[in-house]
Amino acid sequence: MGLYIFGQAAVAVFAITGVLAAVRKDRDLLGLVILGMVTALGGGTLRDMILDVPVFWIEDTNYLAVSAAAGAATFFLMKITIINEARSRLLLYFDALGVAFFCIFAFEKTITLGHSFPVAIIMSFFTGMAGGAMRDVITGRPNLLLTKELYATPPLTGSILYGILRNTEMDPARAGLIAVLFIFLFRSAAIFFRLHMPEWLVNQRDHEH
Amino acid sequence: MGLYIFGQAAVAVFAITGVLAAVRKDRDLLGLVILGMVTALGGGTLRDMILDVPVFWIEDTNYLAVSAAAGAATFFLMKITIINEARSRLLLYFDALGVAFFCIFAFEKTITLGHSFPVAIIMSFFTGMAGGAMRDVITGRPNLLLTKELYATPPLTGSILYGILRNTEMDPARAGLIAVLFIFLFRSAAIFFRLHMPEWLVNQRDHEH
Amino acid sequence: MGLYIFGQAAVAVFAITGVLAAVRKDRDLLGLVILGMVTALGGGTLRDMILDVPVFWIEDTNYLAVSAAAGAATFFLMKITIINEARSRLLLYFDALGVAFFCIFAFEKTITLGHSFPVAIIMSFFTGMAGGAMRDVITGRPNLLLTKELYATPPLTGSILYGILRNTEMDPARAGLIAVLFIFLFRSAAIFFRLHMPEWLVNQRDHEH
Repeated sequence: MGLYIFGQAAVAVFAITGVLAAVRKDRDLLGLVILGMVTALGGGTLRDMILDVPVFWIEDTNYLAVSAAAGAATFFLMKITIINEARSRLLLYFDALGVAFFCIFAFEKTITLGHSFPVAIIMSFFTGMAGGAMRDVITGRPNLLLTKELYATPPLTGSILYGILRNTEMDPARAGLIAVLFIFLFRSAAIFFRLHMPEWLVNQRDHEH
Repeated sequence: MGLYIFGQAAVAVFAITGVLAAVRKDRDLLGLVILGMVTALGGGTLRDMILDVPVFWIEDTNYLAVSAAAGAATFFLMKITIINEARSRLLLYFDALGVAFFCIFAFEKTITLGHSFPVAIIMSFFTGMAGGAMRDVITGRPNLLLTKELYATPPLTGSILYGILRNTEMDPARAGLIAVLFIFLFRSAAIFFRLHMPEWLVNQRDHEH
Repeated sequence: MGLYIFGQAAVAVFAITGVLAAVRKDRDLLGLVILGMVTALGGGTLRDMILDVPVFWIEDTNYLAVSAAAGAATFFLMKITIINEARSRLLLYFDALGVAFFCIFAFEKTITLGHSFPVAIIMSFFTGMAGGAMRDVITGRPNLLLTKELYATPPLTGSILYGILRNTEMDPARAGLIAVLFIFLFRSAAIFFRLHMPEWLVNQRDHEH
């Protein structure tokens, strides 16, 4: 039950990022809500298609209602509040939270289906970030994957952490919560302190061409 | 049989929009035909993958031939006619017609497979617009979903209309035709009269950042 | 066995193109390796989802390791070598090789599953180029499909050639190798000599609008 609420929360958080990413003068409720839903449902849809299991929002249409409602609420909040300057940063933190949840869900779903640890890591990571990548492609934003601050490192290390905790005596729900918090806080620190990889893992040359 | 011809027509119409969207100096027949086919077949392919049924153009390769032929015919027409100024508008009207057909097909296919009304609405709407979204992403055009004029409202209301008509005594083919016309005419009116949502459903603030 | 090594090589080659396409100042190892993996695995993932068979890298996780290793090796090579000016051209030739391999693999897989010749041609062609299209979309590069030089012609003719050779007495591995070489050399010639289609198959008018 607690897990179920987390799943809905994750979808809501991603829907919010979709609206935050695309809200502009003259854009309307419906277009933004749809973009929010694509962001919220896109990664999990890809995950379920790759794993060849029924798509999660077909099984449980609450995900549709929650993502639509979260997108609509964000739209109206944006009309009445003055968070314009903070919008881009807010988007990043919500994205971090959404990615954290979806990574761990994807890991758990993949392992539960009997797949191996490497497959679970890859599924966790790729499908956790896929909804956000669709959002960035549709809105024409630079893809967060290629951002300067650590972006993929928190989900990758968090997925591995979860894989390890899951093999201990720990309650799986607690292990999941720890991993989600780890990913969220790690990525948030990366945004806040502009953390990046050590120099030898960063390209220093100017390859613009 | 009538329905079958409509399916092929819908594919042809979308293939035309793909070529119209990308035709430029120095671009060749094959690249444009392929882009037309991606536009024409992309949404239905996604629909069938989500619904986990065999992909429609694998089952019936006429769709491949029709979309390729429509794209090629458009290419040669563009070489000999002077519709340059009208091209962008023509693209919008053809897109409207393609979306109208694909929405209703996706609704019908989803309901026939035993899924619920909300799932059918979402499938109708997302997969009806997906081929056009792929076209816009590949050609680097701004996504129509975020256009100023009503874009998603006609398919959404049209799908709901079809869902209602389908539950009456009405002949399904007639209900489908009415819904397709409704979506096409509604969207055409939106393009022609620059219809948009009422002010309170439109973001008025400038959030460019 | 020989075939297996070719499959891994094809994945490696595509991973290299992903890193070459996106390497820039301040981008880090992990982001680039992930983009390389999306390029390397994206087309085959789409192919397997359309054909409704288990995704190849879930069945055999060596593909994950090889694509990650190839991307990482490219990253470090880019740090220590001076191939900046040649990078764009190198990317095109590696892309040509990757496309050649993936087209023939997709053709073979599709035919082996009992599908018809037209379906195999389309699968060969669309999924052979899909990983590269994902790379171009994520990095915001102009799509190679709409490039001036022959891009889709070599895979199309090469797939047809392979379809014909496969029906002769020829050893399938040899037929595949000939087709891969044919596609690679044809496309390389197109890049090097700036080959394009005959005038009547190229749009001459300026449709920028």
